[in-house]
Formats: sequence, C-alpha cells, structure tokens
Amino acid sequence: MFESNVYAGRRSGLIRRMKEKGAEGIAIFIGNAETAAQYRDNCYKFRQESNWLYYFGIDAPMYAASLDLDSGEECIYADDVEIDDIIWNGPSPSVREVAESVGVKCSKEYAALDETVRTALAAGRRVHWLPVSRWFNASRLASLLGGSPEQFFSEGKRGCPGASREMVESVVSMRLVKEEREIAEIEKACELGYEMHTTARKGVKIGKIEQEIVGAMEACTLAKGWGISFATILTQHGEVFHCHSHENPIVPGKLLVVDAGAEANSHYASDFTRTYPTGGRYTQKQREIYSIVYDCNDYAFSITRPGITYREVHLATVARMLEGLKALGLVRGDVQEMVAAGVPGLFMPHGLGHNMGLDVHDMEDLGEDIVGYDADQKRSGQLGLGSLRMARRLVPGNVITDEPGIYFIPALIELWRKEGICKEFINFELLKKEYFDFGGIRLEDDVLVTEDGARRLCPERLPISPDEVEAAMAAE
Amino acid sequence: MFESNVYAGRRSGLIRRMKEKGAEGIAIFIGNAETAAQYRDNCYKFRQESNWLYYFGIDAPMYAASLDLDSGEECIYADDVEIDDIIWNGPSPSVREVAESVGVKCSKEYAALDETVRTALAAGRRVHWLPVSRWFNASRLASLLGGSPEQFFSEGKRGCPGASREMVESVVSMRLVKEEREIAEIEKACELGYEMHTTARKGVKIGKIEQEIVGAMEACTLAKGWGISFATILTQHGEVFHCHSHENPIVPGKLLVVDAGAEANSHYASDFTRTYPTGGRYTQKQREIYSIVYDCNDYAFSITRPGITYREVHLATVARMLEGLKALGLVRGDVQEMVAAGVPGLFMPHGLGHNMGLDVHDMEDLGEDIVGYDADQKRSGQLGLGSLRMARRLVPGNVITDEPGIYFIPALIELWRKEGICKEFINFELLKKEYFDFGGIRLEDDVLVTEDGARRLCPERLPISPDEVEAAMAAE
Repeated sequence: MFESNVYAGRRSGLIRRMKEKGAEGIAIFIGNAETAAQYRDNCYKFRQESNWLYYFGIDAPMYAASLDLDSGEECIYADDVEIDDIIWNGPSPSVREVAESVGVKCSKEYAALDETVRTALAAGRRVHWLPVSRWFNASRLASLLGGSPEQFFSEGKRGCPGASREMVESVVSMRLVKEEREIAEIEKACELGYEMHTTARKGVKIGKIEQEIVGAMEACTLAKGWGISFATILTQHGEVFHCHSHENPIVPGKLLVVDAGAEANSHYASDFTRTYPTGGRYTQKQREIYSIVYDCNDYAFSITRPGITYREVHLATVARMLEGLKALGLVRGDVQEMVAAGVPGLFMPHGLGHNMGLDVHDMEDLGEDIVGYDADQKRSGQLGLGSLRMARRLVPGNVITDEPGIYFIPALIELWRKEGICKEFINFELLKKEYFDFGGIRLEDDVLVTEDGARRLCPERLPISPDEVEAAMAAE
Repeated sequence: MFESNVYAGRRSGLIRRMKEKGAEGIAIFIGNAETAAQYRDNCYKFRQESNWLYYFGIDAPMYAASLDLDSGEECIYADDVEIDDIIWNGPSPSVREVAESVGVKCSKEYAALDETVRTALAAGRRVHWLPVSRWFNASRLASLLGGSPEQFFSEGKRGCPGASREMVESVVSMRLVKEEREIAEIEKACELGYEMHTTARKGVKIGKIEQEIVGAMEACTLAKGWGISFATILTQHGEVFHCHSHENPIVPGKLLVVDAGAEANSHYASDFTRTYPTGGRYTQKQREIYSIVYDCNDYAFSITRPGITYREVHLATVARMLEGLKALGLVRGDVQEMVAAGVPGLFMPHGLGHNMGLDVHDMEDLGEDIVGYDADQKRSGQLGLGSLRMARRLVPGNVITDEPGIYFIPALIELWRKEGICKEFINFELLKKEYFDFGGIRLEDDVLVTEDGARRLCPERLPISPDEVEAAMAAE
C-alpha cells in the first residue's frame, strides 16, 4: 500500500474528472469477496478488485465505499471482526483504523451501503458504478440497485452498457497514465517475470513434462510476489494462443512458446513471451520465421513514442512482417494492399499489444473499446487488427506490451483457402506443404512510453535474438 | 479421469439410493464456470465442482447434467466450440464425444437444461439439486428454479435448507466410503504433500521470509499436481489457525506451524501439519507441549478402527491431552469432569479431524452436520468439540485427518478468565506468566480406515517425534 495521501489524491482527482463531465450524485465501489475454489471456506488466493486497489488500496475482502460527488464525502463500508474471527484469523485493526490508513474518515458497517444508495436514489440522485467481472460483485450491485446480476457484468469489449460512462472514462483517463510509484511496482513484477522466464529457459530439456517447468516458474513469483499475473502459457503448440494444458513431454525439433508474467505483492503485473527451440537450436526454417518476429518486436519498439497511435505502430509492424513473409514466398503482392485486405490476420490474428498495470490487460473489464481507443478511433472488424486492445495515441506514462507473433494455424488456413479469402496474396500450397506442423512464435516485452520515446520495463532484457537464445540455452 | 463405467456405475448407484429414499423426478448437476481473478478473461486456475467430478469426471467449465430418477435417462449439457475458440484454445472433442467418454449418450446445448427443468416442473415432478458454493452456480440454479441466488448457497454446517435431502444424503453415503481407485489418487496427493513438507522443513532458516518457503512448497505440487489443496498455513503464530500472511522473517526461538496439502491432477487432496522449532531445536517448554500433541496424534491413530465413532476418538484424545497439561500444572482436577465441562476447547478449539477426498474438508458444502454426523448424533455446542467436522461411526474406506493441537491464544484465555469459564480447572496465572508468547502446535496425518484398523496415507510418515524432527533439521 502507498501512503494515505496517494489514495486521497486519486479519489479527489476522480471526483474532479467526473464533475468535469457533468456527473452528479454518488459513486460506489464494490471490493471483491473471497471466491470458493472447492467449498465456501476453501477459497482461491484472495485477489482484490483493481479499481478498488487503485482508489482505496485496502487488500482485504468485503469492503465497499461511496464517494459523494457533490459534498466530497467519502465512506468505507466493512464489518469489524468478532472474537471467533480473532481465534481463527488473528487480531486485526478495526475498520475505522483501516479506513484512516487510506485517508477516509467515515466508516460504517458493510450493509450500511444499502442505506446510502437508497437515500441517494430517493433524492433523485445518480448512483455511478463500474462494470464488474465476478458474480459476487454483480449480485451485490443487483441487490443495491435492482435488476439481475447479469446487467452489471462487463461484456469485455463494450464494458457494461448500464455502467456510468463518466465514471468509467474518468477512471480510464487516470489509470492509463502510470505514476512513478506504479512504474516502480511494475518493474518489481518485471523482475519476477524475468526470473520466471529464466527458470523456464533453463528448464527446457527433452523429456521433461511441461507442467514441471510451469511449477518451477510459478515458484519464483510465489516466493516473492502474489503469484502469476495470468495463467501461464507454455506450449509446443504455439499456434494455439491460450493453451493451458501442460501434460506433454518436451520433444525435439519443436518451438516452445512461453508467455507468462508475475503479479507483485502490490498486484501490478508483468507479461513476457519468448519462444525456445526445444533442442536448444532453431532449425533453418524456424530461424527464418523467428527472425521476422524478432525484427518486428524491435521495430515496433523503435517507433513507439508519444504522439504516434499504437494502431499506427501495429499497422507499420504487420507491414514489416509481410515483407519478411514475402521474401519467404508465403505471400505475394503489394504490402500495403495486403495490409488493407487484412492478410496479416492470417499469420497474427491478434493485436500488437495491450495496456498493462494492475491488470495484465489493464482495465479490460471497463471495456476494451473505451480503454484502448480514443474517441476518434473505431475498432476494425478485421481478424488481427480487430483484436488490437490498445490503439490510442500514446502519451508518456502509458505502459504497453510489444508482442508480435507469427502462427501457422491449420484450421484457420484451411478456412481461408476454402472460402478464398485473400487468395490472390497467399501461397496456400506452400503453407500446407511446409508449415502445417510449424506451430507459432511470439516475442513480447513490456514497454513504458517516456517523454521522448520508450523504455523496456525490465532490469535486463530477456535473451531474444536467435543467437542470444541459443547461447543462453547452450550454457545451461 | 477414470474409465467411463466408473462414472456410469456411480450415477446408477446414486439413482438407486435416491429412489430407496422415496425420491422421484430429476436430479440436476451444475458444473463450475471459470472464475475471474482480475477481469472476465483472466481467471483463476479452473477448479471443477467436486460432485460433478465424482459423477461425471469432465474437468472443463460450463457443463451441466440431468438424471431422470424414473426413466434412468441421463443428459449432459454443454456447448461445442466455434472456429474462434479453435484459434484461441485449440481443437477439442465435441460435447457428444466428451459425454460418451463418461458413459452418457445424450448431450444437448448448455441452455437446453432450462427446457428439461421447465418440463419437469410443469409435469409436477421434483427437481433435486445440491447446495453450491459459487455465485455462478447459485445464479444458474436461481435462473432455472426461480428465487434469488442466496437461496442456493451452502451455509456450511447446515448445508442449504432448500436442497434435496435425498440427493445430499445419497451423495454423502457414496463419497464417504472411498473406492480403491480414489485411495490411490489420495496417495498421489499425499506423496506431493510429503514433498511440500520436506521442502518446507529444509527451508526453515533464520532470516528467510516465510513467503519464500511457501513459494518453494507450492512449486512441488504445481510441478506434478493441480496445486495446493487449500491456502497454505505457514506461520510463527500457530495460535492463529488460519494465518495466511507470510511476510515475516523466520526468527529464532519460535515454533513454525506448517499446515499444507497438495491437490493431485485428479483433484484428490492431502493435508498434513508439522510444527518446527525455527532454530532447529525445541526449547524445554516447547518440547513438553510438543510431546503431548505428538502423543495425542499417535494415540488417536492407535484407537481409530471400524466401529468406533470419531467423536469417541476425539474425546479420548482430548482426555489424554488434559492428562499431559495436568502434569505441567496448567489444569487441575478430574480429567473426565474437565472434558465434560469443555476445558479442552481452551487449548484445542477445533475438532480432531475431518473427512478428506476430492475436497480437503470433504463435501463440506453439502453440510457438515450431514457429512460428519450420523443420524443419531448431535453436534455439541462446546468450543472445540462443537467444531468437530467428523464424528461418525467409522467404516472401512473412510479417509480422515488426525490433527490434535495445543494453542495458547491470549485473547481467548483472557476472555475465559474474565468470564470465569471453567476457572476451577484452569491455572490462568501460569498460562499468563509463561505461555502467552508460546504460539501453538498442531500435528496432522491423513488416515484411511481399513477392515481391521487404520493406515496412514503417506509413502513415508513425515518426521514427527521431536528427536526425528531435530535430526532431520540438523542434517539439512
């Protein structure tokens, strides 16, 4: 937790921004509850809601709060512990003390938020709330405001249509630009992420079960941080983006994609990807594709700076990728025409990167289209570009990922061939003959936009050039 | 997953038992959904619902099922994947194939369960369901059956009053008696638990941060199993039962309680506790208390056999504990009178053990009073005995924990002294003078009730006698 004035400052900033947008009434925050893994009292490791962490910092379950936009009054709602809790969970500070530690003077019992909301509604005032991602929070909002839990859920891209636009936009505008203290926490997460990836690279040995590498990686972040910032992707099927099955032994000749990050104890995230040759050396064909992805990663970083949009960076990067694929005879024709036609999506059906902060896809539950797109930008419908989570014009303090990739997805290639999509540009024959068992490659770094350019957020860059990777693996 | 006939056999067993209790209509099962950790698409590691695992085995989210008690018809409800899912998550078998792999011939889309339930209700048939522990499952039942999600939650001890008594009792009667194949899986979890505890013991070094030991322990189970079976307790404040904060450095002269277990990939659990002297050697006072707890653990195991109730084992064990405490001058008077008066609860405010299986507190969400108590047994209101989760008359196949403990909880001792509880038996002066900074000790093994006695479920027993522990620590 930061000093109390940090949170007080953020809250008054939020109120100011919301009022500038014409909002009145009260804003409410619902912190997370414990979540059962097996049964009610056997829970997953507690993860606080990120907006709550940003404005209130209290890392404990069953907290809520209200901010009065008109009077500036703030109140935290939670229940003090009883003697039974003291036996089972140890002595703990009172809610009043906890509230004071984050600069909030008023505290009430958890259920008292009902009264606050009822009073506001009865007086015809608006109650502002943010989209949620857990059933507990949705049910709590439903019981406070009426309606069914489903109405309060984030839908992902669009966020939640019923949520307060003023509140969402104000939160996004603040959390998009990281404070120095946040960057320091992200760097801690990056340091743990570096350790995780180093452990993974050292663990790549023929015959080892993937899960053993994953376990060793997660130990790094559990020992010093909260844990993983998302489910580790470690797979010899890199063409399957979110492959979370880890039961296979490492076999020779494959590419192992490791996409993993750490969450610091402060809950800031890191997110890196590297792709290793399972036997320690890339084949000629692997090296050709790898070199294109590596070049794209470096190129995207080199043009990342304030003033450019990340959509432009994405488009320039996939154009460069097509140049490389063209040289290999996998595509043909004019690169700009291919970009316009959506050819890149066949090879990289995802965006170049996303915001990162307290969430690994920062604020995704507030609505990707609001978080990642400026008011004058519209999300594309194309495969690949349409998945770009961060398209905005960059400003200093943005923290984004740079993660180009090339994948050969048989089901997708067959679909395009069958439907004749972009057939004038694509060498389906060569793809089918030579690349159906290739897998995929992705290379990802975390990047801070600075005053005059960009800086990679890692104490040291993980080995990335084919030669560096092979040298590191040979030495291990 | 086991062979398909295992699940088919269990389901027909369930139907038969429910019908023997006079039930008719249909029984429905709601498998778990993914649970957001940060935002909707960033989830905790998926954990399937245990009753679902027992009867259907399918370890994937968004499955449901119905069993027709009258016709014997079975149906599984889930949605096949689309092309987008194939890109992101890889190709996967169809729902029909998955259903067949667990012996179910009928499969329908997920939403079709609504129609099945509606039809049953319209025909005046009963719909049987089990209490749930997650908001998603509660909300799904509420949308199927009407009412609010809160009505479908397990309350812990009582289960859920609205749930089907026939279904709950039938499930409990089956899951209480472990099959050979289940015992084999529990032993795998025990093997991982053994590794975790060995790692912990080796990690006890002055100056190390507790979290570093926890991380290393969890790595053992993540590398070969699903993960931890419950949030690891590793604390120099053993008197706080569920202390999950691990930020303290190991300091000399303390007792470190390590209560942790593994969940195998099959989701069966283990659960062990050991208590280590932080400096490698117990002090005289620590050794005195430790020896009592150790003796109680061995004694409880020695009398565990078919025919005795675990309530009797608990009571005989705490009587033996009082003998030990009496010899140290901490209590005085007749031991049986003290047991009747509830004196043991001051030192061991929990029960001797619980059932263990797919859940670490097996089936706790079905209602502890049903799971752990025979029809002719009533739960005590006393501190300690009242927390006994397993009181039943033992039968071969029961898997239970044996976990006596002695704790010196200043807040509780002060409360009893202030209120004069059992004051004729308790030496409050000595407690306050000598034991307020002692902490606590717990020693726990996992035990299978066999045909003629009991067997500890671990390839090798973790070092437990004070001499064994000190020797092991000296060698590390």
